[in-house]
Amino acid sequence: MNKNLVALAISSVFLTACNNTDTKEIEVIKEVEVIKEVAPTPVTTVKNVILMIGDGMGPQQVGLLEEYARRAPNSTYNNKGNITALSKLANAGQMGLSLNAPHGANGMLVTDSACSATQLATGKAAGSEMIGLDDQGYIVETILEKAKKAGKATGLVSDTRITHATPAAFAAHQPHRSLEAEIAAEMISSGMVDVMLSGGARVFVPADISTDEADRQIMADLGAPTSVYKKSKRKDDRNLIVEAKDQHGYTLAFDKTQMQNSDATKLLGLFANSGMADGIAYKACRAADTCSQPSLKEMTVKALDILAKDEDGFFLMIEGGQIDWAGHANDAGWMLNELLKFDEAVEAVYDWVKDRNDTLVVVTADHETGSFGFSYSRKELPQARTLDGDGMKGADYKPNFNFGALSHLDKLYGQTGTFFDMMNAANSDWDFAAATAQNWMDAVNQYSLYKVDIDQASKIGEREINEYYVADHSYQSAEMVPSFADFKEFYVYADEDHTAKIGRALAADQNVVWGTGTHTAAPVPVYAFGPDGVTRGFSTMQHHVEISQKMMTALGLTYAE
Amino acid sequence: MNKNLVALAISSVFLTACNNTDTKEIEVIKEVEVIKEVAPTPVTTVKNVILMIGDGMGPQQVGLLEEYARRAPNSTYNNKGNITALSKLANAGQMGLSLNAPHGANGMLVTDSACSATQLATGKAAGSEMIGLDDQGYIVETILEKAKKAGKATGLVSDTRITHATPAAFAAHQPHRSLEAEIAAEMISSGMVDVMLSGGARVFVPADISTDEADRQIMADLGAPTSVYKKSKRKDDRNLIVEAKDQHGYTLAFDKTQMQNSDATKLLGLFANSGMADGIAYKACRAADTCSQPSLKEMTVKALDILAKDEDGFFLMIEGGQIDWAGHANDAGWMLNELLKFDEAVEAVYDWVKDRNDTLVVVTADHETGSFGFSYSRKELPQARTLDGDGMKGADYKPNFNFGALSHLDKLYGQTGTFFDMMNAANSDWDFAAATAQNWMDAVNQYSLYKVDIDQASKIGEREINEYYVADHSYQSAEMVPSFADFKEFYVYADEDHTAKIGRALAADQNVVWGTGTHTAAPVPVYAFGPDGVTRGFSTMQHHVEISQKMMTALGLTYAE
Repeated sequence: MNKNLVALAISSVFLTACNNTDTKEIEVIKEVEVIKEVAPTPVTTVKNVILMIGDGMGPQQVGLLEEYARRAPNSTYNNKGNITALSKLANAGQMGLSLNAPHGANGMLVTDSACSATQLATGKAAGSEMIGLDDQGYIVETILEKAKKAGKATGLVSDTRITHATPAAFAAHQPHRSLEAEIAAEMISSGMVDVMLSGGARVFVPADISTDEADRQIMADLGAPTSVYKKSKRKDDRNLIVEAKDQHGYTLAFDKTQMQNSDATKLLGLFANSGMADGIAYKACRAADTCSQPSLKEMTVKALDILAKDEDGFFLMIEGGQIDWAGHANDAGWMLNELLKFDEAVEAVYDWVKDRNDTLVVVTADHETGSFGFSYSRKELPQARTLDGDGMKGADYKPNFNFGALSHLDKLYGQTGTFFDMMNAANSDWDFAAATAQNWMDAVNQYSLYKVDIDQASKIGEREINEYYVADHSYQSAEMVPSFADFKEFYVYADEDHTAKIGRALAADQNVVWGTGTHTAAPVPVYAFGPDGVTRGFSTMQHHVEISQKMMTALGLTYAE
Repeated sequence: MNKNLVALAISSVFLTACNNTDTKEIEVIKEVEVIKEVAPTPVTTVKNVILMIGDGMGPQQVGLLEEYARRAPNSTYNNKGNITALSKLANAGQMGLSLNAPHGANGMLVTDSACSATQLATGKAAGSEMIGLDDQGYIVETILEKAKKAGKATGLVSDTRITHATPAAFAAHQPHRSLEAEIAAEMISSGMVDVMLSGGARVFVPADISTDEADRQIMADLGAPTSVYKKSKRKDDRNLIVEAKDQHGYTLAFDKTQMQNSDATKLLGLFANSGMADGIAYKACRAADTCSQPSLKEMTVKALDILAKDEDGFFLMIEGGQIDWAGHANDAGWMLNELLKFDEAVEAVYDWVKDRNDTLVVVTADHETGSFGFSYSRKELPQARTLDGDGMKGADYKPNFNFGALSHLDKLYGQTGTFFDMMNAANSDWDFAAATAQNWMDAVNQYSLYKVDIDQASKIGEREINEYYVADHSYQSAEMVPSFADFKEFYVYADEDHTAKIGRALAADQNVVWGTGTHTAAPVPVYAFGPDGVTRGFSTMQHHVEISQKMMTALGLTYAE
């Protein structure tokens, strides 16, 4: 309510009423009507924005997480009310959906992570595979950069690599996402990001890091474990980690302990040479209390600790990036474990914001990956059963199809290695022409609670001449690729797509289907928590460009349409 | 705002102020604080509920509609702001998502339409393929029945059959969805449904209708075109249409004109022998102004006209039922045309409610069908282009993959027959063992703007021994079925699944993928429009059982948990 207007209305009543008691009641009623139309002034801006991106986390993926949490017989949520952190956010805030395809002059139907994150970061249409550019290739200031210039603290957290498409799009400007060495240089030198916590050290260390003893000693002296600097993807001698420390004022961290013990306000944490631990590996090390890397949740908590010290507020982006990797691999067990890892981080954010009114939290995805679904089948049809109900009129309860037992949720959760672990087990040199059916069978059965026989295993290893061969293409320069009978054009990652062949071998037993080895254009869920006047606008069918604009508006930042 | 409390507060100020001017301002401020905490009393009940169900309309399907409306070069929405009626509802109301699987004692991962509609109708967990029963088979009163008993008018509208799973679940109670003859008898005799507009006359007419001249004359005398009563699926001599008229007081309608001219308050409209016109046939007859059946929109408008006459309010369920059929067929062109037909009906509802505050509109789906997606591929990779932007630094714009041209949206819309039309063209007797590759090629190329060659056509016709053969099963008693290399367990409808083989032949050229011939468990979109206090609770991750309960609460109806 607008307090000034109310006070004015009441004063008016008073003056009239003291002079003429007959008019008093009429005047009161009139003024009350006026007051009635004075709506409360909603809170429409916030000090902080926390954006969480589940990479590849479409409605289908969120559905998997929710079904697991709510109905898996042995759900890890059984001791906490069977409610996900995502659902807590949804119950306390707002939900919507968001279209995410490349808009503008290079508009297409499906997005990649770079374009999608760029559209979320800039509020402008972008082209495919671009980082921080608009649809014509012009550099656009991101919400992170605008926030920094407005005096706020900024942070990026991801369980992939800090230079991977999603975090990169908030703090770099490059014509292609593959330019990670350039992205790394830009991110440490721009002065725009106070906190960076992720993997990806391989594009920060000198080209000869695996053989040059002096370079290795420098990393050891900085406190890095050898696993972090085991190899380089740079083509020059720069050590961006040293530059970050000496020239740009970053404190460094290379493991969980270093990160947690740091009291820095400008922190670069690089915890893996490439991607960080996957959700299944994390589940295992957490159970054994042997995790040396921080979890996505622990990185999130640390980032919040640091950024919250800035009285001007902050912008923080947190990515659960391996949901997408599991989707590309058509690996439902891995995907579930990634969703659980992400939801832990959501829980930390929810606990931090739930009693605040100065922070907007937006959780969304950049796109869906895999066209995943639980689905009903004609395998293992249900047996007839008798039900007590009066509506059965003597008929058996015998559905025509297998609608999928809830026990699948536990069996998927229980997977002990990703499909990539299985590939490594089948042939550690990735020489898949040499992998036998027995190799594949042993590899799958080592890690999956669903077992394949030798015929199924044989199909996993089938390969064919690449009919879409292109010289010098990142993936299509492979002459032989895993064979796909249907939808083969959507399996674009050459040898890596043996994962999807594993997915096909397990699908019928899991009641799981996949449509693609790439992304789909499905609109993705949006969760918004914060002051009602800020979150209300997210409960609609929007586009990612608009999400960015709404976040900027909430922070009081300006943008060009 | 609570008007009484405000008036009281002001009176108090007045009495104090006239006696002592010194205390006046202090008192005013104090009372203003009190007023400030008096929240507006929200409207939490409504007179009418309109539930619209897009059968099979998951987030993926809604995404297809939105992309078409917003970005198809020749979108039919180009002359109306490129905004769907669904988006108008979302912008003016609230959005959420809803899980839809069978809950309770017979809980499974994936639902069929009967179970899903039953859970939406009853607010109770149900088993698979049940109509209006709970998970133990007990009869449960539906929201339609509760509304009727509370004195409200009731209606059911569908473009499938009035006895099909979705409408049936609101007004019948049967152990299995296939019992449509029993469902028809129940629906006309219960007195619960005032308006029924749909297809499905075949379970209302006597068993010998196709040969018995007296029975045929009765139908002709009632004004029915022969197409409506061409055959029967009953096993007895009952004519439920005559019973509806003579014993239960229904006025009858068999075509659009009869329906529109009727001034009845109790109306049974049966406009087709089985399902009504599909979205592509509707598009054609509308363009030629030759539609004899009413459209989904026209049925909706008529139902609203009739039901709105009841001063006690109404409950109306409207189903766009063939979105699901197109999804099962893996037919993206047909699916888009069904979505457009449904959105027309949504538009009519939106126009009816947009200025009202006494009606709750909920639009949702029962489940997703097909695991549909646009997806990026390695076929027809983009050519390098030059962009002007400063961020390109001399690099070409050359994405690694084919992200899908927007022109697909127009080409899908332009399909002139469904995949079933193509099947009929390939072999009108459905003798697919006899259909040649040439037959398939001609059939597909007759109706699709995407053309197949003879090799692709040959694959469409491939068949195999049914390895999941089950005697006496509705579908699995077929000895030969279309052959599927991957995910074959999810193609459960025997010969009908040649449609999905057509889908596979066209997929790469359409940038379209499908995961299944059945349903997935993806959470489905929920749109809620009405008073804010009623719709707010829908903007979360809910379950269909809860949607039902929220609708009942909004109508002031009670239900057992």
